[in-house]
Amino acid sequence: MPARRPADAGFDNLLNDKVQTVNLQLESLLDEQKDIHEDLKKALAYTLVSPGKRIRPALLLWSCEAVAGRDSHEARIAAAAIEMVHTYSLVHDDLPAMDDDDLRRGRPTCHKAFDEATAILAGDALLTLAFEVLATKIADAPLAVELISQLALAAGGAGMIAGQMADLQAEHTVGSIEALEYIHINKTAKMFRCAAVMGGLCGQAESGRFKAEPAQLDALAQYGLKIGLGFQIADDILDVSASSAQLGKTAGKDVEAAKCTYPAVIGIEKSRELERRLAREAMQALTPFGSRAGVLHALADALLQRNR
Amino acid sequence: MPARRPADAGFDNLLNDKVQTVNLQLESLLDEQKDIHEDLKKALAYTLVSPGKRIRPALLLWSCEAVAGRDSHEARIAAAAIEMVHTYSLVHDDLPAMDDDDLRRGRPTCHKAFDEATAILAGDALLTLAFEVLATKIADAPLAVELISQLALAAGGAGMIAGQMADLQAEHTVGSIEALEYIHINKTAKMFRCAAVMGGLCGQAESGRFKAEPAQLDALAQYGLKIGLGFQIADDILDVSASSAQLGKTAGKDVEAAKCTYPAVIGIEKSRELERRLAREAMQALTPFGSRAGVLHALADALLQRNR
Repeated sequence: MPARRPADAGFDNLLNDKVQTVNLQLESLLDEQKDIHEDLKKALAYTLVSPGKRIRPALLLWSCEAVAGRDSHEARIAAAAIEMVHTYSLVHDDLPAMDDDDLRRGRPTCHKAFDEATAILAGDALLTLAFEVLATKIADAPLAVELISQLALAAGGAGMIAGQMADLQAEHTVGSIEALEYIHINKTAKMFRCAAVMGGLCGQAESGRFKAEPAQLDALAQYGLKIGLGFQIADDILDVSASSAQLGKTAGKDVEAAKCTYPAVIGIEKSRELERRLAREAMQALTPFGSRAGVLHALADALLQRNR
Repeated sequence: MPARRPADAGFDNLLNDKVQTVNLQLESLLDEQKDIHEDLKKALAYTLVSPGKRIRPALLLWSCEAVAGRDSHEARIAAAAIEMVHTYSLVHDDLPAMDDDDLRRGRPTCHKAFDEATAILAGDALLTLAFEVLATKIADAPLAVELISQLALAAGGAGMIAGQMADLQAEHTVGSIEALEYIHINKTAKMFRCAAVMGGLCGQAESGRFKAEPAQLDALAQYGLKIGLGFQIADDILDVSASSAQLGKTAGKDVEAAKCTYPAVIGIEKSRELERRLAREAMQALTPFGSRAGVLHALADALLQRNR
């Protein structure tokens, strides 16, 4: 990989800080699950407490900070919940009947490390646990309900699952740019948007102004959607340009599976251009936050650096 | 089948009434899903709007009536949500990697009618939708949060999913009565208990006494757990004594799969005795409700009639 700019090191430190926070929160929530089936717990721990990038929960925590100047207990619970939903989606997407992948986050996928039935059930348990922790660990009922709504809408049949459905159907077809957008917006960008909005809601609750400033939430929604789409395009580009060791998952898998990706449909150069445009637009959406959105700017900037 | 007592016809009418209510609610909630992926919606409609017995949602609605004298919008939403979770569990349990079943509710299982990937995603979407409707369709936030907690706890890795995990692991083993109880309590009885408690919570909210009388909720929890365990034992007995046409699913499947069932472990006669004892205990738990729990008595009674 090319040498990275000093700015990246600063961002990496900020991200690492959030990775620690999220990992601790996930471990503590898992530890509290006393009555869970033991073998299921092993599978949950294996998939959940793994070297993930934790971009979605970090985005959530930073969005909370952009609103309230700090994160909060509620934001950390929400961050863990969104990472649980992301992880469940990876576990199910990797199944033989879906993308049939053997490697994830640098380790055997859940159904390879355990078995297929365990992977299906572990995914189901993670999805359920995400809603459980939001409902049981957040005392402010209106906030909890709003977070659950946002997460369910982003992750459900009109969001992430619709994206995966379309992604599977698009294999071995000549993808149009519209089909591609549908897949990436649903499969990835809506969950990023959801992370930003959930963080914003936690931040507003923390500052005692829950839902009082819809413009803040709109700005975060805009930012999250753009960043999410840009992130997915960057991922597509990396899949064709990086090795499996760099990715922690099987490289070239998209090409092999004849997946509908941006580089396949519009070429690598145009994909990079689009990614840059999305990062710029994401930064513009942050205007209402001024200097308080520094880290969110850095996240958009880091996105641009990934493929240089 | 032996001739049924007149009392059963009366109960059947009461149940049919609730089946109509639940089916209408499910159809209306599905209709509202405008942005859902079209093929996913077809799979959801296929599995959800199917000839199910709707015992769990009926139990929920009757528990609400036992508390408030009537059901409510909130109870109907909760009834639809619990049926969504039950249906998702059937769709996933039927998968080739799990129980590998071809027939369900008298029709091809979801992965047979569509394909395996669609069945996995349809199950995921149903589970997510259950939480979505509870969070978005119930205006009373503390009630919504409590319903979501109860459902997530009953359906998760320390409940229904633990039961399915243990069930799969117990195949081809000589089951102990303890292992059997663990499976049935987790896989079935906790969801029945959850239905009764959710109904009770809706009833208390409807009568303006939300969580004011924990003894009511305890009684319903006791009743639901006993009825649920009795129902599962009845199901096990039916599997060895009825035909596929009567069941709407493959008969003798438990024996073939060497499943850990009550008839296999303690014999049919002792299973029937246990079922009767559970029905009696369930009825005793209803004492605090007096005559207002008439239909819940009839449900326990109907359970006893199923295997006569």
